[in-house]
Amino acid sequence: ATLSQPQYLLTLYFLVVAGLALLAGFARSVTTRSEVGSRFRPAVVARLTVTGVAFVSYLLLITTFLSSYTLTGDTYVPNGNAVMMFALRYTDWSVTVPLLTFELLAVCSVVGPALRRTQLIVGASSFAMIFSGFLGAIVIDEGQSQAQLLIWGGISGVFWIITNVLLIRCVRRSLPSLTTQAASWMRSATILMLSGWVVYPLVYLIQVFGDGGGWATTMQVSLCVADVLVKIGFGTLIHRVAKLRTAEDV
Amino acid sequence: ATLSQPQYLLTLYFLVVAGLALLAGFARSVTTRSEVGSRFRPAVVARLTVTGVAFVSYLLLITTFLSSYTLTGDTYVPNGNAVMMFALRYTDWSVTVPLLTFELLAVCSVVGPALRRTQLIVGASSFAMIFSGFLGAIVIDEGQSQAQLLIWGGISGVFWIITNVLLIRCVRRSLPSLTTQAASWMRSATILMLSGWVVYPLVYLIQVFGDGGGWATTMQVSLCVADVLVKIGFGTLIHRVAKLRTAEDV
Ligand SMILES: CC1=C(/C=C/C(C)=C/C=C/C(C)=C/C=O)C(C)(C)CCC1
Ligand SMILES: CC1=C(/C=C/C(C)=C/C=C/C(C)=C/C=O)C(C)(C)CCC1
Repeated sequence: ATLSQPQYLLTLYFLVVAGLALLAGFARSVTTRSEVGSRFRPAVVARLTVTGVAFVSYLLLITTFLSSYTLTGDTYVPNGNAVMMFALRYTDWSVTVPLLTFELLAVCSVVGPALRRTQLIVGASSFAMIFSGFLGAIVIDEGQSQAQLLIWGGISGVFWIITNVLLIRCVRRSLPSLTTQAASWMRSATILMLSGWVVYPLVYLIQVFGDGGGWATTMQVSLCVADVLVKIGFGTLIHRVAKLRTAEDV
Repeated sequence: ATLSQPQYLLTLYFLVVAGLALLAGFARSVTTRSEVGSRFRPAVVARLTVTGVAFVSYLLLITTFLSSYTLTGDTYVPNGNAVMMFALRYTDWSVTVPLLTFELLAVCSVVGPALRRTQLIVGASSFAMIFSGFLGAIVIDEGQSQAQLLIWGGISGVFWIITNVLLIRCVRRSLPSLTTQAASWMRSATILMLSGWVVYPLVYLIQVFGDGGGWATTMQVSLCVADVLVKIGFGTLIHRVAKLRTAEDV
């Protein structure tokens, strides 16, 4: 969609702020990585890789955004590249969403072969959720057919439910074995992540009915905000749980 | 081949997802490098360098892809650069495939001069496998002659068999000296790597008969998936074996 100058600058503002926040989050994960015992190292690895991969994705998003619009008169007119602004978000999520599920599972009380099985199922279903969204939004009929958008959105929604149910079940089983403080942070982390996960399908729905620069700006801005809240806020809470449980283990 | 927009975006999606996954795999190798004792350090080095080199290769592949096609009407038309999308994969493999064989050998029970001799032979024959594939696919008659493709594919296949036989022999000899759990992971790692190695010659064969954007997309997508499974999945399993054997050594 064609963007007015305020819309263009607002989108750019949120892209750059999110990118810089993710860089700060990455630096923080590196610096605090040894606060957590080796038993919870997978949570540390997930946090490091989520923030690192997301930062690199935002660099790509920012350069793509800058090269996707041409200032014509006083509006910004998109060229053929603009579709990549959404395609690149799916590439980011395809890697970071499974990693976020591993981050949560790493502080649950499932261990050993049961943990590896859960990781495999939850990782695969969260990837399938993103990939079917990508097929609907970008690939099939170039994302222009409302029917296909809804069909693939629905398929993605099925995987969304499966992933949610499995994660909530794991967290619920783990809560009784935690101290009050750890359990409360763990509950907040889960609520934060899963409420974030509600934003993405809503933004996807905008594609079905919404049109024009205002909606395009709303979509990009909401995704930036949700990304930062989930990737940094959730990561911080999980880190606290892991730190506390490390202290309790001793 | 000319690509439709969905083909172009699907290829780009897999290239970027594979690149980001390899970046995450590299960060993970860095973070977990000290979980393994010094005796298995060569496995750590191999895992770090495989993921690091592959990530850099994917950066090159992505920038090459973006500069190899021009959007004309609603299709993407390749320019002279497009051949590099395959040439650059051979450069990646020439370095990473010998390293993958060292990664496997590092957790086998061969040691000392026998290990060094095996490394030399397996390393050289896996390199020769890739290099003769490169000659056939890219260099001799610019990869346009079916006969030359088959001849060099056959030469590469001979080295493929030699490498496979030597690796399987080493693994089989090592299994009895491992604990049940370590042996089971080692078996999975070998099966995962060698099944991955079946994908590459099949993709090479597509060149002989296949044509058009659909086949070009299939080739790039399969190679991205195989690369991630082999480089990250295999690396994870070998790391587990090395970690377990480190604990047992104490
Ligand atoms: C259900 C559903 C979707 C869910 C997306 C989600 C849940 C994305 C989460 C992304 C996160 C957490 C990113 C990291 O920060 C799609 C793919 C939009 C397609 C429409 C249906
Ligand atoms: C047998 C054969 C081949 C084998 C290639 C292999 C086995 C490549 C493995 C690559 C890996 C494992 C990359 C790293 O992820 C070629 C060269 C295609 C040429 C045709 C015959």
